[in-house]
Amino acid sequence: MAQHTESPAGNAVGVDIGGTKIAAGVVDHRGEIIASTRRETPATEPAAIADAVADAVAELATTHTFGPVGVAAAGFVDAARSTVVFAPNLAWRDEPLRARLEERLHRTVVVENDANAAAWGEFRFGGGLDERGAAVDDLLMLTVGTGLGGGIIAGGLLQRGAAGAAAEVGHARAVPDGRACGCGNRGCWEQYVSGNALVREGRDLLRSGDPLGAGLLAAAGGDLDAVDGPMITRLAAEGDPGCAQLLSELGRWLGEAVATFCAVLDPEVVVIGGGVSSAGEMLLAPARASLATHLAGRTHRTPPPLRAARRGNDAGTIGAADLARTVVPTRTA
Amino acid sequence: MAQHTESPAGNAVGVDIGGTKIAAGVVDHRGEIIASTRRETPATEPAAIADAVADAVAELATTHTFGPVGVAAAGFVDAARSTVVFAPNLAWRDEPLRARLEERLHRTVVVENDANAAAWGEFRFGGGLDERGAAVDDLLMLTVGTGLGGGIIAGGLLQRGAAGAAAEVGHARAVPDGRACGCGNRGCWEQYVSGNALVREGRDLLRSGDPLGAGLLAAAGGDLDAVDGPMITRLAAEGDPGCAQLLSELGRWLGEAVATFCAVLDPEVVVIGGGVSSAGEMLLAPARASLATHLAGRTHRTPPPLRAARRGNDAGTIGAADLARTVVPTRTA
Repeated sequence: MAQHTESPAGNAVGVDIGGTKIAAGVVDHRGEIIASTRRETPATEPAAIADAVADAVAELATTHTFGPVGVAAAGFVDAARSTVVFAPNLAWRDEPLRARLEERLHRTVVVENDANAAAWGEFRFGGGLDERGAAVDDLLMLTVGTGLGGGIIAGGLLQRGAAGAAAEVGHARAVPDGRACGCGNRGCWEQYVSGNALVREGRDLLRSGDPLGAGLLAAAGGDLDAVDGPMITRLAAEGDPGCAQLLSELGRWLGEAVATFCAVLDPEVVVIGGGVSSAGEMLLAPARASLATHLAGRTHRTPPPLRAARRGNDAGTIGAADLARTVVPTRTA
Repeated sequence: MAQHTESPAGNAVGVDIGGTKIAAGVVDHRGEIIASTRRETPATEPAAIADAVADAVAELATTHTFGPVGVAAAGFVDAARSTVVFAPNLAWRDEPLRARLEERLHRTVVVENDANAAAWGEFRFGGGLDERGAAVDDLLMLTVGTGLGGGIIAGGLLQRGAAGAAAEVGHARAVPDGRACGCGNRGCWEQYVSGNALVREGRDLLRSGDPLGAGLLAAAGGDLDAVDGPMITRLAAEGDPGCAQLLSELGRWLGEAVATFCAVLDPEVVVIGGGVSSAGEMLLAPARASLATHLAGRTHRTPPPLRAARRGNDAGTIGAADLARTVVPTRTA
């Protein structure tokens, strides 16, 4: 058991750059966001994204003092944590984000993949802590949002992999010759454990004419395109049996995914985040049951606890800030 | 790129305890075995196993000086590297192997899972080094023997997991509701990538009556039970098309396994060891082709090199010795 009671330095800024918005916050040594601001993401122009980040950070600097800046980026970040190699939803191709930001900010900048940053935020200040505030050394986080992301902490260290592409768990294979995935492969876990998968199954339920879909069909006004994840979760919480079954099925797949990643990683704790995790125990209880029946070596070990993430959409901001101050790298600019 | 040119100390002893034999060797700082001896494994009695190890180490001490002793054990080793929780082929159940050996040897002892030790041996002194002797920081080793084992090095550190059960890659799931596995689950990678899988497919080929099986049927003297892995590999090397196809199919599965583990781990190099890897390029060439077509994000990255292990059956002995001297722990005795 590791104890992470205090960060090594004072305030840092975390910036979470997503496809539609930029969230920036001053994060203190306890992982609390003590000031925050937002900008729209200018999706078409890399320089404009950097300008928007600089503008947000400058606003925070008018009221707070802070050291380095950590950036959580929705894309493939290189091992040097400087360059965004590729981002599916942004105008970045081999984008030297760190250099571009250090130029504007005159501060040390660290760039991290957004799912990795969120995993670090939960590890340090969220689901990684037990009820007494004790930390673990080995944590796996799965982010069940539109897709399926992940982050791995092992031996107290964020695992980036050789090219910065570790923990792309959504694109490990769940099913040979399974459903086509946007990544070009088939059968990726993301096709079975994600918000997109939940919505697809919901629509399939309606198409089937199964009476279990009656509640969802009514909520969607008869329009399959109106079905979304929050609608399914809300109906399930209200007791709709069809939607409860959809979440339970998703939870079963989630538990199987956790079991297979546990065979590779053996984490002490597994944290489940992302938008779909707002379903809480409707998702996590069936996931735990499925993990318990699929864990390798389950006759000789107990499954790791499966916990809900606790920092929600702030985890990336918090984690990026903490990574920036925890491992202060050499500046490139 | 990490450089591991020298070990921190002098000679150490590595002991590899398998189901049938105990191999012990004095390993120098370059990873060379400069003296070795063997004992039969007394499979029925834990104290007798410890006695046999002590006897082998005492023999080595009559001619060589060395420091700590590293033990590679074919079983589940706890996170403290002291206790063998469970071993499928030996009389160990919660066996305090480290304490029992330190009692007899009066030296520091480190116990490690055998696949982890072999991965470390290859990482430091084998397939982890390129042709110029340069090392990597992130390596995945898959051991394709009777079953499928593995070892993970990330950031230059052996990854043990929270309970010492990391890298049980053979029991991650390849196929939902797939073939039954001895571990109690279905569809484990071990059922598709292993010597047992190769032999099973060979026998299935003969049962099918496919003329492609003619060479193998003749070599086995018409007896399906006589088919084994070395027979298939030998015939394939001699140009038998049926056996070449069996190895090629196994290689395809191997490449798919590597691709899925790369999505999780992103290693810089993947080393393939174990008895089946003696098939060399007959196995590795199709594995590389399959990895290249299944790697997640393959349009934005190149696959890691897939290399044959270079230390053969000695990797566990070498790795255990090096682990013992690299991280000298507090003695328990």
